[in-house]
Amino acid sequence: MTDIVLSIVGRSDTGKTTLLEKLVRELTSRGYKVGTIKHDLHGFDIDREGKDSWRHKNAGATMTIISSPTKLALIKDVAFDTEIDQIVAKYVDDVDIVITEGYKQSKKPKIEVFRKAAYDDLLCSGDENLVAIATDSIHDVNVPQFNINDAKGLTDLVEEKFLSKRVPLRISLEVNGNPVHIKPFLHSMLIKSVTGMIRVLKGCSNSKTITVKIERGEGFS
Amino acid sequence: MTDIVLSIVGRSDTGKTTLLEKLVRELTSRGYKVGTIKHDLHGFDIDREGKDSWRHKNAGATMTIISSPTKLALIKDVAFDTEIDQIVAKYVDDVDIVITEGYKQSKKPKIEVFRKAAYDDLLCSGDENLVAIATDSIHDVNVPQFNINDAKGLTDLVEEKFLSKRVPLRISLEVNGNPVHIKPFLHSMLIKSVTGMIRVLKGCSNSKTITVKIERGEGFS
Repeated sequence: MTDIVLSIVGRSDTGKTTLLEKLVRELTSRGYKVGTIKHDLHGFDIDREGKDSWRHKNAGATMTIISSPTKLALIKDVAFDTEIDQIVAKYVDDVDIVITEGYKQSKKPKIEVFRKAAYDDLLCSGDENLVAIATDSIHDVNVPQFNINDAKGLTDLVEEKFLSKRVPLRISLEVNGNPVHIKPFLHSMLIKSVTGMIRVLKGCSNSKTITVKIERGEGFS
Repeated sequence: MTDIVLSIVGRSDTGKTTLLEKLVRELTSRGYKVGTIKHDLHGFDIDREGKDSWRHKNAGATMTIISSPTKLALIKDVAFDTEIDQIVAKYVDDVDIVITEGYKQSKKPKIEVFRKAAYDDLLCSGDENLVAIATDSIHDVNVPQFNINDAKGLTDLVEEKFLSKRVPLRISLEVNGNPVHIKPFLHSMLIKSVTGMIRVLKGCSNSKTITVKIERGEGFS
């Protein structure tokens, strides 16, 4: 598990999810593994009616898991809102940082998203856990302020403040000798697949560098 | 966690999900808490495009959790197909029995679903872990055979064979003095909510019987 948890907070419709997406993309492209937690006070529907997992749950199962070779999903009933630390301890492993959307009441470091069209004042102005604001305004507060779209600037701050001891896994891809940009999604998939497969080989459990080179005379189809 | 795991196996299109649903409904109505695991070798899509959790995951998060006061969901990337025992140890708690759909290769007790229109022969005829067959035929095997729709008979067997040491939680509801049938879904929700709320009260952590009586002179609207 990781003990690095950062919360994106803000009032409704200020763009918390959008900022979280940008931070996740930027951190992932820098080689970090990111886990996220969305706090949903109103309940949610994640499954699709008629799907097998939906049928399991709807028949009365208190928890349903779907397990495949690439993805695992769990849906379970709970009796209370679960604390962040409990969620992290029980479910989160193998990530460098956890970013939450919501949990403004928690004691975790926070970035507030502010949009002047939505509200007049900050949500967390007196909060000692506030580490930055992503905003389209200028505020009279004692924490760094970033433009609401400046994911790179915010990620620099997050990296410096919370991730300085982590060594991110970086991956690069060349095809026919030319570097190819890897999208964040494929990025983490590739890292996970390759390191996963390599790890079980003898003498490879602590590999620092992995180079996979696939060559074929006639090219790939 | 529970160590009682039963697998529903069978060839494609024999009705594994349908039988599992019936067993879960029947076990739940008898007061047991049931967890389920669906083995999906081909991968799956559980989330809906555009939903916040989908956006988190799609931005590159290797795991995404949604937490609400009534439900928790987790979607994570994995590098390999996970063993049942690992899934149960890590994710399953607070259930009396786990029923899996699939995992025909595992060493867990199994019920095979057979439908003669779909295939000619049994999948697990030589499997020493086979405990019963749910079928529309008659087979020359040494295990109990049930009609494919006989969920009550199968549940009797499951209860006797695996759950004899469990004391199920039973719940009943009366409204205006008249008993009201509780559907399986509400059944487990009610048990979970009430026991969850009671458990935190002083002296109630090991309650054997809980009676909640809500009365109002003018009736409920």
